[in-house]
Amino acid sequence: MNKLLIRISPPPPLVYPVYIGPMALKRLGAYLKPYPAARRIVCVTSPNVASLHWETLKNCFPRSREICPILVSDRERDKNLKTVKKIISALIELKVNRYDLLIAFGGGVIGDMTALAASLYLRGIDFISIPTTLLSQIDSSVGGKCGINLSAGKNLVGAFHHPKAVFCDVRFLKTLPQKEWRSGLAEVIKYAVLEGGGLWFLLRRHKRAILNQDPHLLRKIILACLNIKKTLIESDEKDHRQRRLLNLGHTIGHALEASQRYQKLSHGEAVAQGLYYVAELSYRKNFCSKRTRQKIFDLLSLYDFYPLRFSRNVFAFLHRDKKRKDDKLHWIMIRKIGQVCQAPALFQ
Amino acid sequence: MNKLLIRISPPPPLVYPVYIGPMALKRLGAYLKPYPAARRIVCVTSPNVASLHWETLKNCFPRSREICPILVSDRERDKNLKTVKKIISALIELKVNRYDLLIAFGGGVIGDMTALAASLYLRGIDFISIPTTLLSQIDSSVGGKCGINLSAGKNLVGAFHHPKAVFCDVRFLKTLPQKEWRSGLAEVIKYAVLEGGGLWFLLRRHKRAILNQDPHLLRKIILACLNIKKTLIESDEKDHRQRRLLNLGHTIGHALEASQRYQKLSHGEAVAQGLYYVAELSYRKNFCSKRTRQKIFDLLSLYDFYPLRFSRNVFAFLHRDKKRKDDKLHWIMIRKIGQVCQAPALFQ
Repeated sequence: MNKLLIRISPPPPLVYPVYIGPMALKRLGAYLKPYPAARRIVCVTSPNVASLHWETLKNCFPRSREICPILVSDRERDKNLKTVKKIISALIELKVNRYDLLIAFGGGVIGDMTALAASLYLRGIDFISIPTTLLSQIDSSVGGKCGINLSAGKNLVGAFHHPKAVFCDVRFLKTLPQKEWRSGLAEVIKYAVLEGGGLWFLLRRHKRAILNQDPHLLRKIILACLNIKKTLIESDEKDHRQRRLLNLGHTIGHALEASQRYQKLSHGEAVAQGLYYVAELSYRKNFCSKRTRQKIFDLLSLYDFYPLRFSRNVFAFLHRDKKRKDDKLHWIMIRKIGQVCQAPALFQ
Repeated sequence: MNKLLIRISPPPPLVYPVYIGPMALKRLGAYLKPYPAARRIVCVTSPNVASLHWETLKNCFPRSREICPILVSDRERDKNLKTVKKIISALIELKVNRYDLLIAFGGGVIGDMTALAASLYLRGIDFISIPTTLLSQIDSSVGGKCGINLSAGKNLVGAFHHPKAVFCDVRFLKTLPQKEWRSGLAEVIKYAVLEGGGLWFLLRRHKRAILNQDPHLLRKIILACLNIKKTLIESDEKDHRQRRLLNLGHTIGHALEASQRYQKLSHGEAVAQGLYYVAELSYRKNFCSKRTRQKIFDLLSLYDFYPLRFSRNVFAFLHRDKKRKDDKLHWIMIRKIGQVCQAPALFQ
């Protein structure tokens, strides 16, 4: 018997920029240059995003470059294999090759499906992300995770595929429906609890300006959130250790979303409920003080997130998720504002 | 505007063993140890492979470990998204989690689909490969490439996902249908042309023993092929440079397969035709001598591969493939036995 050892050389380091602010898209042109000038750039987006922002995007394109849209639904319930296959069929139709560039232009659903299609098509092509929602700008567009839903659950199929660059242009947020905007805000509050410094105080002091979408403040908020995410993902891309802290409020949040079949609550609203729950749990299990719990309750209610009663049913979904993914529930508990910890063995 | 640079730490080096020989499966137990003893090991295979070899596999399993089969078709025409989805649904049904192990047990089709399912399910779980055909033992089970077919073409969707270990047990080859065996043999001849040393002479001198599947010779052949593959893939995992040399005979081969809709010729038989074509082309374009061409013709005919006439239609498929993947045809030309080169700009 012979033994042959295969040693695959490590890939080059993965480094990519995120541009944040009202002028972020000005930098787009530089990232198109490596791609053959004669080739079209294909852009996956939704009819809704295209109708609102296609002109803005096109104006940021060098005149010489042709851009070609692929339109797909951006509803969570359409974030499935069927839509990804639709994107891939369009790529074939458009004769996209290994050296072409794809753009994801839309919210988290568009981002996830485009990243997955880019990861699978011809075993992986480059893509750039232009997130248009608060939630995708502060969170899902960075970090390489992409996933789609099966009827059995959320994000059960996916990959890690990072963009070549991300452009968070806050101008797109102006047209965001209230529900989408609030979904992002709840996730911002989660980041503030994780961070406990500048972002926390910014949220407490500047409610009015934030709700008025002051571009300067939005830029600051997005930067603060992504700085936290950056720290947690850079040395744990595959989500085995500290990246899990980003799941603060998500354990119950995911179960809540699943229990009402992703119909009523947005992702962020479910996370806000998750934050209420985990703040209460952290206090009851002596992880944090009553005062810390109250501070979190106060910030949530400052932004009009109030605790809901939810049925025992939710806990069944908690268990289902646990069984499937990991055999352990990864509760992220709060010690104080700006300090959380993982407590997997607590409540099995 | 702010710029944030995301720097993802490189993953740990990717190293995995390939065991080759009649006793290769004896080493299986050691590779199951890192996976929780209480958990079942799930094994993707085909009804045909299971009926022939399930007992052999089970006997190599530690008594304490439970093994659970997922049966899918292993026909090339079923190597599609539907079958991969079927595998993933079974994984969900069996409550497979992030820390479980999957086994691919079968030929190249089973290997490709299992690797892709393992790559996608929960964004990636571990798998082990136990190839049962000559073609998968000398080639597809090693190197991380996995792909499935769409109606528009072969391997248009896929990923790079390497196994944790590969076990090439030559005992499985005894039951191989003649067509499958010959498909592998043609690919062995390709490797011999690439290598031009021990493997080339072995094929020339030991035809009878090889066709009688002498286990000692088979082990030597598999080892020689994988040694060549190892050299070419280790520093070019993603197929941008020297890994492409493995495509010797495949440019025409793929077009031939596509032109007859993967019905008549096996992959290897198409590659044998590709070798005939590229040897002729290399001679005509002054890459190699008449003698080198003749040597290749002789080895092919020694193993009963004879040149077919194929219609001009094939060249249309060549063009189609080119347009889609790369805009360039990557012809691998022969200089002499054991020396090939890439000549992309030659025949656009």
